[in-house]
Amino acid sequence: MNNTIRKIAIVAFLTFGCFSASTAEAFTASTNIPEAQYPKVDTDRCAHFRIHAPEARDVKVDICGTKYDMTRDADGWWSAVTQPLVVGFHYYFLVVDGVSVIDPASEAFYGCGRMSGGIEIPEDAETAAYYTFNKDIPHGQVRECRYYSDIENAQRRCFVYTPAEYETRTDRRYPVLYLQHGMGEDERGWHQQGRMADILDNQIAAGKCVPMIVVMDYGNCGYIFGARPGETRADFGATFTPIMINELIPFIEKNFRALTDRDNRAMAGLSWGGHETFQTTLYNLDKFSHIGSFSGALFFLADGIDKAYDGVFTDADNFNKRVHTFFLGMGTEEGFGSDRISKALTDAGINNTYFASQGTHHEWLTWRRCLNEFLPLIFKQ
Amino acid sequence: MNNTIRKIAIVAFLTFGCFSASTAEAFTASTNIPEAQYPKVDTDRCAHFRIHAPEARDVKVDICGTKYDMTRDADGWWSAVTQPLVVGFHYYFLVVDGVSVIDPASEAFYGCGRMSGGIEIPEDAETAAYYTFNKDIPHGQVRECRYYSDIENAQRRCFVYTPAEYETRTDRRYPVLYLQHGMGEDERGWHQQGRMADILDNQIAAGKCVPMIVVMDYGNCGYIFGARPGETRADFGATFTPIMINELIPFIEKNFRALTDRDNRAMAGLSWGGHETFQTTLYNLDKFSHIGSFSGALFFLADGIDKAYDGVFTDADNFNKRVHTFFLGMGTEEGFGSDRISKALTDAGINNTYFASQGTHHEWLTWRRCLNEFLPLIFKQ
Repeated sequence: MNNTIRKIAIVAFLTFGCFSASTAEAFTASTNIPEAQYPKVDTDRCAHFRIHAPEARDVKVDICGTKYDMTRDADGWWSAVTQPLVVGFHYYFLVVDGVSVIDPASEAFYGCGRMSGGIEIPEDAETAAYYTFNKDIPHGQVRECRYYSDIENAQRRCFVYTPAEYETRTDRRYPVLYLQHGMGEDERGWHQQGRMADILDNQIAAGKCVPMIVVMDYGNCGYIFGARPGETRADFGATFTPIMINELIPFIEKNFRALTDRDNRAMAGLSWGGHETFQTTLYNLDKFSHIGSFSGALFFLADGIDKAYDGVFTDADNFNKRVHTFFLGMGTEEGFGSDRISKALTDAGINNTYFASQGTHHEWLTWRRCLNEFLPLIFKQ
Repeated sequence: MNNTIRKIAIVAFLTFGCFSASTAEAFTASTNIPEAQYPKVDTDRCAHFRIHAPEARDVKVDICGTKYDMTRDADGWWSAVTQPLVVGFHYYFLVVDGVSVIDPASEAFYGCGRMSGGIEIPEDAETAAYYTFNKDIPHGQVRECRYYSDIENAQRRCFVYTPAEYETRTDRRYPVLYLQHGMGEDERGWHQQGRMADILDNQIAAGKCVPMIVVMDYGNCGYIFGARPGETRADFGATFTPIMINELIPFIEKNFRALTDRDNRAMAGLSWGGHETFQTTLYNLDKFSHIGSFSGALFFLADGIDKAYDGVFTDADNFNKRVHTFFLGMGTEEGFGSDRISKALTDAGINNTYFASQGTHHEWLTWRRCLNEFLPLIFKQ
């Protein structure tokens, strides 16, 4: 290709994206239901959508903040190809005559405060290996447990990852990580969207993290803030902490071979789950010594770091002695402020680890990476 | 009420159903996502649906074989109230300008060959107790396990129910029931739609069935027959049996404290899963001694009972000695022929138990009841 043609090709690609790259090989998305050929993802990371809607007047795909008009053919099939998308998992919807719905060809994922469509834009196999099922290693289990909350006067559900060796090393107890989803999501998110079982299986098999139990419960923030009239930001999800402290932890420690001291108890969460993690752990440092915030929705700098969490950051030496892991991570493209918070903490003498996920937004690939960075740090004391 | 008025009221009710019964108290459906007030179900068992679709021209609710037109108000909210519905779980869809979609207010369930909406029309609490969470009894776990199939060259997933005592009685082994979903469903169905964990928890706590492991895997029939061009009825789901025999059973018996003799191995399935159960067990009676078909899709009478399954029914004495439980169940309203099959088997001298679920269709309440009848029969030898 001579330089002029190459330049034209590059300009055309940047301008038209995948619309001009129709020859890129496209593969059925891994997030589809059985037998569904579409959506597909091509080698340029463009997603191809199709739906039969002969009576609809207007159909769009709503993904990654952009609504793409779909085009109707003579038989009533609508199709669209997106611009190249960021790798990783994205929620998406079809918009049929103004109604936002799940693509019938998609598996459903709880996110955006409702069941949502989802599509995985694959990374290359080597990069994705840490969250990919590996047939040659042992696999843990993800156990659904139901328990009764006297506080809520209702049945609750949590998912508990147990490492593969939990089944055979029955004399051994394990440290426990409590791992929270974000706003509009629920206790299924870390396993389904976050691929946490593969991340744990792979790290444990490689000796990168210690075998541990991981508990995923509902953070009481599974709707979009604002859906309950009059609810303040301080209220949102705040009912979770007392349930976790008084009911969930005792339930886990009664029913699993858990280590029960603070050195062996961690909590981490993404987005609003990061906020819940700080709200829970920093007021209960007698119970936790490993803390992770992944794109945490953290607002405490606004009032001054000294005032935050009953002044927990004012005695840095004491904090650093008690908290073995203090981790903040964020995608470089999302602007959730974790970098500023990490710097402010460092300036205040608070030991912390900061991780920047290159090129990712406020989405699950950021959080898979955060978990992958966080796990090797904890329970190593 | 005098007789004339009563007659008018009855006629009006039969004619207009719930449309005239707007005063019946309505409750948010248990199958909704958090914060969703609609759908509701009223005390006349009518379901009330609502969706905001200001740009749509036509919106319907598609439930239990009927499409109800929804009515638009000035603000673009569409609503409909159904006729009284049969109790139990129903898949349903909203049809927006001809496109069948999941109600955004509904949890999603894999059924109908895709993710579907679902609504539970509650029975009275006493009748429903056997499939209802009871906070005062111990609860088992439902464990998601992933394994690799060399036959399919792919990752597979199964769900394994372990009884509550499995965690503490670590010297004990348990019998295993393999429990299959129907056409267009998958390995999630028995737990989510079928409430199998509650049924097992309640029966075990009451001493009605023995504590057992229950395995729910994908029957390779999760799409609607006909979706694969050229596939014969004999092909549909037939790839499951060799996987179950050669990979799933060994996986379970390696990873769980399972009893491994035929007296302690059962298989049951609903609809196409009933067909798969007969295909798997009746050709492998060295491995199974308890067999259940719940509204099974069974066709073998057409060619004569003597020819069925390599003549397994021709030696009734031998069959009756080997098969400890042979159960057929069906709803009285569905016409799947299990009654005729049971009678033909009885006429041929084959011991079998027949259960008719009164007033129910080819739906999950029939199968909850079938499971509830089947469990006390098995593993009692």
